[in-house]
Amino acid sequence: MPAKKTRKVRINTSIPTLGPAKIKSGMHYCQFMEPDESTKITIPVPQPDGKTKEELLRFELAGPRQKTYFDPSKTKCAIVTCGGLCPGINDVIRAIVMEAHYNYKVAATIGIRYGLEGFIPKYGHNILELTPEKVGDIHTFGGTMLGSSRGPQNPEEIVDALERMNISVLFMVGGDGTMRAAESILNEVQKRKLKIAIIGIPKTIDNDISFVYQSFGFDTAVEAATTAIQCAHTEANGAYNGIGLVKLMGRESGFIAAQATLALKVVNFVLIPESPFTLEGEKGLLEGLAERLKKRHHAVIVVAEGAGQDLTDASRKTDASGNPILGDIAGILRKRIPEYLSEQKIPHTLKYIDPSYIIRSVAANANDRIYCGFLGQHAVHAAMGGKTGVVISRMREHYIHLPLKLVTGQRRKIDTHSDYWRAVLESTGQFQYMRSCFGTPED
Amino acid sequence: MPAKKTRKVRINTSIPTLGPAKIKSGMHYCQFMEPDESTKITIPVPQPDGKTKEELLRFELAGPRQKTYFDPSKTKCAIVTCGGLCPGINDVIRAIVMEAHYNYKVAATIGIRYGLEGFIPKYGHNILELTPEKVGDIHTFGGTMLGSSRGPQNPEEIVDALERMNISVLFMVGGDGTMRAAESILNEVQKRKLKIAIIGIPKTIDNDISFVYQSFGFDTAVEAATTAIQCAHTEANGAYNGIGLVKLMGRESGFIAAQATLALKVVNFVLIPESPFTLEGEKGLLEGLAERLKKRHHAVIVVAEGAGQDLTDASRKTDASGNPILGDIAGILRKRIPEYLSEQKIPHTLKYIDPSYIIRSVAANANDRIYCGFLGQHAVHAAMGGKTGVVISRMREHYIHLPLKLVTGQRRKIDTHSDYWRAVLESTGQFQYMRSCFGTPED
Amino acid sequence: MPAKKTRKVRINTSIPTLGPAKIKSGMHYCQFMEPDESTKITIPVPQPDGKTKEELLRFELAGPRQKTYFDPSKTKCAIVTCGGLCPGINDVIRAIVMEAHYNYKVAATIGIRYGLEGFIPKYGHNILELTPEKVGDIHTFGGTMLGSSRGPQNPEEIVDALERMNISVLFMVGGDGTMRAAESILNEVQKRKLKIAIIGIPKTIDNDISFVYQSFGFDTAVEAATTAIQCAHTEANGAYNGIGLVKLMGRESGFIAAQATLALKVVNFVLIPESPFTLEGEKGLLEGLAERLKKRHHAVIVVAEGAGQDLTDASRKTDASGNPILGDIAGILRKRIPEYLSEQKIPHTLKYIDPSYIIRSVAANANDRIYCGFLGQHAVHAAMGGKTGVVISRMREHYIHLPLKLVTGQRRKIDTHSDYWRAVLESTGQFQYMRSCFGTPED
Amino acid sequence: MPAKKTRKVRINTSIPTLGPAKIKSGMHYCQFMEPDESTKITIPVPQPDGKTKEELLRFELAGPRQKTYFDPSKTKCAIVTCGGLCPGINDVIRAIVMEAHYNYKVAATIGIRYGLEGFIPKYGHNILELTPEKVGDIHTFGGTMLGSSRGPQNPEEIVDALERMNISVLFMVGGDGTMRAAESILNEVQKRKLKIAIIGIPKTIDNDISFVYQSFGFDTAVEAATTAIQCAHTEANGAYNGIGLVKLMGRESGFIAAQATLALKVVNFVLIPESPFTLEGEKGLLEGLAERLKKRHHAVIVVAEGAGQDLTDASRKTDASGNPILGDIAGILRKRIPEYLSEQKIPHTLKYIDPSYIIRSVAANANDRIYCGFLGQHAVHAAMGGKTGVVISRMREHYIHLPLKLVTGQRRKIDTHSDYWRAVLESTGQFQYMRSCFGTPED
Repeated sequence: MPAKKTRKVRINTSIPTLGPAKIKSGMHYCQFMEPDESTKITIPVPQPDGKTKEELLRFELAGPRQKTYFDPSKTKCAIVTCGGLCPGINDVIRAIVMEAHYNYKVAATIGIRYGLEGFIPKYGHNILELTPEKVGDIHTFGGTMLGSSRGPQNPEEIVDALERMNISVLFMVGGDGTMRAAESILNEVQKRKLKIAIIGIPKTIDNDISFVYQSFGFDTAVEAATTAIQCAHTEANGAYNGIGLVKLMGRESGFIAAQATLALKVVNFVLIPESPFTLEGEKGLLEGLAERLKKRHHAVIVVAEGAGQDLTDASRKTDASGNPILGDIAGILRKRIPEYLSEQKIPHTLKYIDPSYIIRSVAANANDRIYCGFLGQHAVHAAMGGKTGVVISRMREHYIHLPLKLVTGQRRKIDTHSDYWRAVLESTGQFQYMRSCFGTPED
Repeated sequence: MPAKKTRKVRINTSIPTLGPAKIKSGMHYCQFMEPDESTKITIPVPQPDGKTKEELLRFELAGPRQKTYFDPSKTKCAIVTCGGLCPGINDVIRAIVMEAHYNYKVAATIGIRYGLEGFIPKYGHNILELTPEKVGDIHTFGGTMLGSSRGPQNPEEIVDALERMNISVLFMVGGDGTMRAAESILNEVQKRKLKIAIIGIPKTIDNDISFVYQSFGFDTAVEAATTAIQCAHTEANGAYNGIGLVKLMGRESGFIAAQATLALKVVNFVLIPESPFTLEGEKGLLEGLAERLKKRHHAVIVVAEGAGQDLTDASRKTDASGNPILGDIAGILRKRIPEYLSEQKIPHTLKYIDPSYIIRSVAANANDRIYCGFLGQHAVHAAMGGKTGVVISRMREHYIHLPLKLVTGQRRKIDTHSDYWRAVLESTGQFQYMRSCFGTPED
Repeated sequence: MPAKKTRKVRINTSIPTLGPAKIKSGMHYCQFMEPDESTKITIPVPQPDGKTKEELLRFELAGPRQKTYFDPSKTKCAIVTCGGLCPGINDVIRAIVMEAHYNYKVAATIGIRYGLEGFIPKYGHNILELTPEKVGDIHTFGGTMLGSSRGPQNPEEIVDALERMNISVLFMVGGDGTMRAAESILNEVQKRKLKIAIIGIPKTIDNDISFVYQSFGFDTAVEAATTAIQCAHTEANGAYNGIGLVKLMGRESGFIAAQATLALKVVNFVLIPESPFTLEGEKGLLEGLAERLKKRHHAVIVVAEGAGQDLTDASRKTDASGNPILGDIAGILRKRIPEYLSEQKIPHTLKYIDPSYIIRSVAANANDRIYCGFLGQHAVHAAMGGKTGVVISRMREHYIHLPLKLVTGQRRKIDTHSDYWRAVLESTGQFQYMRSCFGTPED
Repeated sequence: MPAKKTRKVRINTSIPTLGPAKIKSGMHYCQFMEPDESTKITIPVPQPDGKTKEELLRFELAGPRQKTYFDPSKTKCAIVTCGGLCPGINDVIRAIVMEAHYNYKVAATIGIRYGLEGFIPKYGHNILELTPEKVGDIHTFGGTMLGSSRGPQNPEEIVDALERMNISVLFMVGGDGTMRAAESILNEVQKRKLKIAIIGIPKTIDNDISFVYQSFGFDTAVEAATTAIQCAHTEANGAYNGIGLVKLMGRESGFIAAQATLALKVVNFVLIPESPFTLEGEKGLLEGLAERLKKRHHAVIVVAEGAGQDLTDASRKTDASGNPILGDIAGILRKRIPEYLSEQKIPHTLKYIDPSYIIRSVAANANDRIYCGFLGQHAVHAAMGGKTGVVISRMREHYIHLPLKLVTGQRRKIDTHSDYWRAVLESTGQFQYMRSCFGTPED
């Protein structure tokens, strides 16, 4: 088991602090956490072979500490939101502002506009003073009241801005790239020996951040995706050999596609990045679809945008955030399905639905609102307790502190050998029609 | 005014009957209509110059008659649904079945599957027996439980099928093409001197059927469209100089785009087929958009799919239903907007949302359900009363009988000189930025 | 026909003005209305016998006039919202503010807080400055951003306040009582020879204001009511002889109950104030319900709060707004139904649902948003054009000016001899079980 | 630590089986569970003092086994649904039928109507044959397609019926009482040495079943409850010193009230059964409310139906299911709040909202649909694998088998010393106004 040992060494879950927390917080809590209270949690850890393995790891627990590192009356917090939209960002902003204001009574919280650009003078974006009044209703709206942008900015300039504005705590809401930016900022802060806490709240519509087993907004996005799938199902049933084809977000991980498939039980084929498939030939998707139509005369296909990249002529270029520009698998399906079925003389009607940003720019549902509320509160607790380089995450119903490092590695993916993926395939029944659906060589 | 005189002659609102209604209906009504009861209604009639003009016309009123033409115990009805989906079709089916069964106690109602194809033996589609139990819950679902198809079928074969199945009443739910098919079937029925009533229920997601001032499902479609626009607004606000571009249905008429714009009040530019616009040059859309961004740093554009066709290289081909295949105006906007803004060195983010079939395959809202309920009931009343060649419509809160002829002419369009369109432009404020937005020569 | 002649004399639809409109408005409209442009509309007018009769009346049309009476740069508007909540009030406020600011460029619009109380110094309520920024998102929320209160206040004190604040236009959003208050304020204003326009926007969740054929928010309330009825249906089906009993708003008019019944088609008994019924005895509700249960083993009853008042011991007291305090018919049904069925040895389960304020405090749906947008805009048009003592209403798709007098008379009720009520009864089928359901003596 | 030792002995998690599973299942799974595969999970276990304590326990994992105990071609399953409605029951039924039919290909699945009554001949309820066609769309509807009833029936008669109908597997969906009934049936089955598997799927709208940390339908119910609270908030803001009072389900546990409070963040006082409070006197609710109104002029109170029972004259009677009939705490609040505030000369408006069955009879949301799908599938896996006396539960993202015994003990309650309840109180801020809100003696 040397491989296992190696990994265990690699997973370092310890959290840096700015220094001892000595100021008695004014909060009336019956029960505070110990300064470095932790717990052991069994979690599935991705292995080099793509599978996951349960491991028991110790994590620091999130929560209020009786003593704070910062003196609230002299503490100014800043929030920045980066990358694509996701349901619940406004809930996180609201929770941070409310917690900082009402429970810690910090001097001020400001909002940085349009992502990391907001720190850089040349863009000329103003900052926003964030008060309880200003954020009171923002959870009613999707998106981010602060605006966002993609891509990195110079960490030195960012830290210059933090110093200039006299910020003690920076809350960064963003994805993989943002968490890497947080690391650079942390390094620069440490180089300058500044007392600034950097706290990350991981955001990803694709639910693909490592060590974050369900990211905020995911539940809402799945709910929104089911509307599109239901419509595709209605369209498929509205025509003889009707086919409803739905494209969903999911660049490298197919969680939204898989979860929405489970939620609605009307999908016959779900295609995700983690599970390669063949289009043409025996037991390829096209043949499988033809068979399904012969049996039932309607079909619904859900395709994650990053599925079947080997079938496309993806350019390997990247966008402003450094994400690869994907090949257009939906376009290929929209072209080849009618061609193939016409060749086979199977009359059919294909309806394509791409809900695109609709699933990510809606307001959070009740479940995500609660989650975001806790994330925001725990982010403030962590910062005030003197933690830094911390990401707030929920694991097995515990809210914990993760070191930034842990979440910026490889992306989380669906384990195609898991019960979860098996349940998805059971729901679609696609293994009856397609060859390569369990990702298993023996199949 | 000879043009006016000519038109008045042209609008013939009289309704054919199969013969006198002599059978006392078993219904317990406090108040039946006279056999040919009618009323005068002032309606806007489209004029050759594209404007509309209010005219006072006499229309036969829909409603139950004390005596029926058909003997219910020997009457078999058939329902067929044709063309694209629209919220409320199932509500119409349900209302017809319930009314025929419970109030008239007709012998049977059957459903023809997959549109007109269902009449033609070579397609091999079965028919469905429609009972109250089978249709009891269908209003919960979008789409049509019968399935649909596009395009005409041979009227002789259709009437052969009606004779073979011993049908007394055919209810046809469909658009412009279907109403033309209804006319052909009516002609064939009359040629054969058959006693079969042909009743049309006009369906159009684009709200563009003449003499039908709000078609069923339109209200629901607008409500669904607002979700997409709200998301575009959220995305636009989520980035610096964010642009949300939404494509909506509307091939020759921009009613959905216009109405959804009124409903949400966040649209800055709405582009519809009835109002040509320029893209390039002074006061073209691109320049207008740039100006808007400079002022407010975000913008929402709604484009009906049939807008700006002169700017595209539309092929003039037609689809199976005979509708012209449209040029891709949204594609042009998605290409030219970023090009132009980049040329102008205006940083920006464009998010494109195409809700496509989502707005038409949802279940009907309460308002449309009520409407569809009345349409279905009045369709049965008309048929049992011996009317034929009739379309059921609502005008100024009256339900009336229209002759088939009236609805199969030109499509209804937005009068760009009306108060309605003015209100839409007031809501967007686009006249500040664009040249040709009132459709007026002096502008 | 002398009665008819008398009535025609009684219905005076002329609108007072403050004086000639002489200032050229800065608006860029292709098409303004003439100063006193009007149209004839056929409307159902309530007759002394409770029935309605169609009459052709002339009404002044709402809309922008080329010349304004007030000089916008010196005009200060005020808005007050009175009485119970209703979906869309915020949409009306928003539309007034936007229209006044962007199109007429008036100096300021202020909001009076908590209804008429807001004018009276002793209550100490502040006013709110209403800017486009402040009202931009309020349509997302139900209720009124200004707050409301019930009951009248001294018109002299109110006009004192108008003078003190230098108000030129007062927009009053409210019901029957508010429109009567508007009349008193108008009288006082005229007595003092002030140049203040009083404009009413009629609000009623019960849809019972005379000459307003569908009040704003009604469509939304019906939609919300259907949720409660659907739940009652689910509960009724969830038990053997399950009964779902739903109480809905409707003090003197049963429009919400009737319309929601049409929308959902699962209601078996609908009880409204306009149609008296018997509870006990042969063909009373209890016997009818028992019969229905024997046939189908589940039933849904919808009761408007003001139904069956003769069966209660209503106190004849009135509340702060002068509305009679109703007897508790739902309480009687909840008591007598189980008693009766137990006496009859019919096992059963009764589930009572009272959605109460839920149906009136939700945000407006798309349809009502559009309607409220027009009401607000036309209110501003009317005021700027120098009209006063005016109520904005929609009739047969025209927006019109009504004199205040017309709407403050008797309440609008469901004509139980109309096609509409017949359709409701057809939907429930209750005439099979109950005696007095058509309101007709012969039944 | 003898107490701990004692408890550990008490928690027996072993699962009985009918005998060895020897038949190779026809399922194509890449990965089956071992026959008695289990895992250790740390769970909060309620202690005698009302607090909870984390313990590490071993549980048998749910999932498909390669070999089945029953021969599918000879297996007939039955489903019964008991007690009150809950979102997702139809999803569970659907999942069982689909799994049994498509994956195990069992001979038949039947539905028992109206709960346990359906087994007892004297009630005369028919059974329903459950096919994939019949259950295909039922997840669209709330409630249970089988109907339900309350209260126990004779286990001997039930087992007679099982024998008569030749049932091999009985799936019982229900709450505490139903799980106790399942135990009695299991005992009777074992006494007769029958080979019938009894599988429980725990259902509780109150989320109060022991060892089930989130029961199905709870997420949906919370979402529905937030609508009512939002309306109460709107009403409270719509009047000066407006108070919105919302009653929510929660007989002995306040989970719905607490979770909905977290989801919406507009509640100022939440009252639950687990946390006694005083109404009158210093720092009682009434004084606290008065203070809150003085500060902010509006307030929202959420009260679980079982809160403050010591303040009522609860009769200690029980209903058909053996649940105590609760005292009317909401009635007391509705009476005392206006009385007290009037005594204090605080003008106010109280709006009471009781969504009652609305929150439990809606259809399940996406999240609950997925959950119910897994519960149903795992129930079939358990039965086919020869398990009996089993309850399916989800714990820390594992689906597990629980022995029936474990879930029929004391009800699960909110630990008022937990972080969770602290977060709820932080959200309301009620500790500023009320005395007894942490359930701690020192407060």
